Amino acid sequence: MAVYTSLGSETLAALIARYDVGTLVSAKGIAEGISNSNWLIETRREDGGPTRFILTLYERRIDAGDLPYFLALLDHLAAKGCAVPATIPDRDGASLRTLAGKAAALIAFLPGVSPSQPTPAQAHAVGAALARVHLAAGDFPRRRADALTPAANRTILERCGETALGAIDPALPAALIRSQAIVAAWPNDLPRATIHSDLFPDNVLMLGDAVTGLIDFYFACDGMMAYDLAVTHSAWCFDPQGRAYDPAVGAHLVAGYQTVRPLLAEERAALPLLAQGACLRFTASRTEDWLAAPPGAFRKDPMAFMRRWQFYAEAGPAPFASG
Amino acid sequence: MAVYTSLGSETLAALIARYDVGTLVSAKGIAEGISNSNWLIETRREDGGPTRFILTLYERRIDAGDLPYFLALLDHLAAKGCAVPATIPDRDGASLRTLAGKAAALIAFLPGVSPSQPTPAQAHAVGAALARVHLAAGDFPRRRADALTPAANRTILERCGETALGAIDPALPAALIRSQAIVAAWPNDLPRATIHSDLFPDNVLMLGDAVTGLIDFYFACDGMMAYDLAVTHSAWCFDPQGRAYDPAVGAHLVAGYQTVRPLLAEERAALPLLAQGACLRFTASRTEDWLAAPPGAFRKDPMAFMRRWQFYAEAGPAPFASG
Repeated sequence: MAVYTSLGSETLAALIARYDVGTLVSAKGIAEGISNSNWLIETRREDGGPTRFILTLYERRIDAGDLPYFLALLDHLAAKGCAVPATIPDRDGASLRTLAGKAAALIAFLPGVSPSQPTPAQAHAVGAALARVHLAAGDFPRRRADALTPAANRTILERCGETALGAIDPALPAALIRSQAIVAAWPNDLPRATIHSDLFPDNVLMLGDAVTGLIDFYFACDGMMAYDLAVTHSAWCFDPQGRAYDPAVGAHLVAGYQTVRPLLAEERAALPLLAQGACLRFTASRTEDWLAAPPGAFRKDPMAFMRRWQFYAEAGPAPFASG
Repeated sequence: MAVYTSLGSETLAALIARYDVGTLVSAKGIAEGISNSNWLIETRREDGGPTRFILTLYERRIDAGDLPYFLALLDHLAAKGCAVPATIPDRDGASLRTLAGKAAALIAFLPGVSPSQPTPAQAHAVGAALARVHLAAGDFPRRRADALTPAANRTILERCGETALGAIDPALPAALIRSQAIVAAWPNDLPRATIHSDLFPDNVLMLGDAVTGLIDFYFACDGMMAYDLAVTHSAWCFDPQGRAYDPAVGAHLVAGYQTVRPLLAEERAALPLLAQGACLRFTASRTEDWLAAPPGAFRKDPMAFMRRWQFYAEAGPAPFASG
């Protein structure tokens, strides 16, 4: 949560002038996005068009070569009516520009706030929105492989090392053993699409129970649709520490998804494993980030996903019954 | 530049409901304010009233006992037509509330962006806006003593210690000697008012050459109006490192001020000394912050104001001639 690059207002005004969006009236650096700098931009214009935008400057972690994919996906989904911000092309028709030596994009501003304590009704709406993305992405022509497969996540944990894991928490090294079974059992024959694969509540904007925006598609890739639902389940249905599962939120998420895209029997059967794979992924990424963080920096606790993992390992199919 | 307190959207929505401003539509944590958490709030309402606000949560550095003074000053100045954001009273008429155990205030959103490379025309407008604040504050009934007098700033440097100063830069310990002369010569008979005393470009919003907002009054206090102009001069007329003085910006700042409030001869005569006092202040505060910063943290260089100090010591009255 930071603005990593400082941009003078003169620089911002000159950038905005390259778009047909009116003149710059306000620019506030916003504390959003884990690895990008973002500004909430307001313009003044006479033609009645939108006057608020998000300007993103892409910093570390995102491969610049992937940006055309991510931006094309936003436009594809927005054109199909998904609640996704479309990119704003500049006067030359380009969605990507360079600013301060970094790639920059202007995208639509969407209203809404991210729930921090999701309700069953909100989870229902998010499940349906996710399924709509899966269907709308069916004819998205670009491909991007998932870099965070269970095998890759297991390698991350191995690189961190058993000793380092144990120093974070005595229960964390068990992830190394458990990940073997997940890699071995991982399915490869479930229906696939372009998936969001990171749909935490932070990445959803809502007004009341309605989804107004799905954002932050920077982990989007080809993948199993049921895995995307499992990721979302692991991200939405627990308290932040991963100690308490909310069965109503879980059931409504799955039910909402199925109002738009009913799951196949084999997808339903795989969900407990897929959810454990999701937990492996976030346990691995948080462990890696934990060990790389400078002293005193805020770090997300990998144990919050080890606990979810344990829950899914014990609970079987029950958390995925849609009530 | 940070949001120090995390607030769930449900908490924010409940807070906004305590005000007669419509319902919450968007809340973005903004990277503004050195020691507060700020959100840009958007609401939906039917009555045509304003729909954008800044929510501030007061963190460290600001004495909660001073907040009624600061907020009353905003309302006093806004009521007199100064480009200052008024506070929004809640449904009970209170400008201050408590949220997450901290004092919170909702204030008007003002358009505009802060110049990072001020032009002479912008400096002229800022000078005039500052003078209007001084005149409008004439009958502000509350009092607040300046905690950052030259004597207090000298004490800060003494507490840091000559050795620590020298470790930052070999030229920095000279501030200890020089500050003696400033304390000894400091005037106490120049015209006074409530002053902003921290009017850096960051604290001014502009649209082109027009001032749309003076913000961040959290150093406001009783003081000499000419000192406030000197602070502004030291903050606006140099490159960030304090190496290059821009005579056109300086001349226009003073000229703009005098279009609204002509300086007395004794104020003009005191400006070189007052500007050195401003440099002492920012040298001291930056030195203190520098030594307190954790390793790797961003720190503002105290030498950027030592260099300005040297400039004012050598330049005499010329930088304050209004051309």
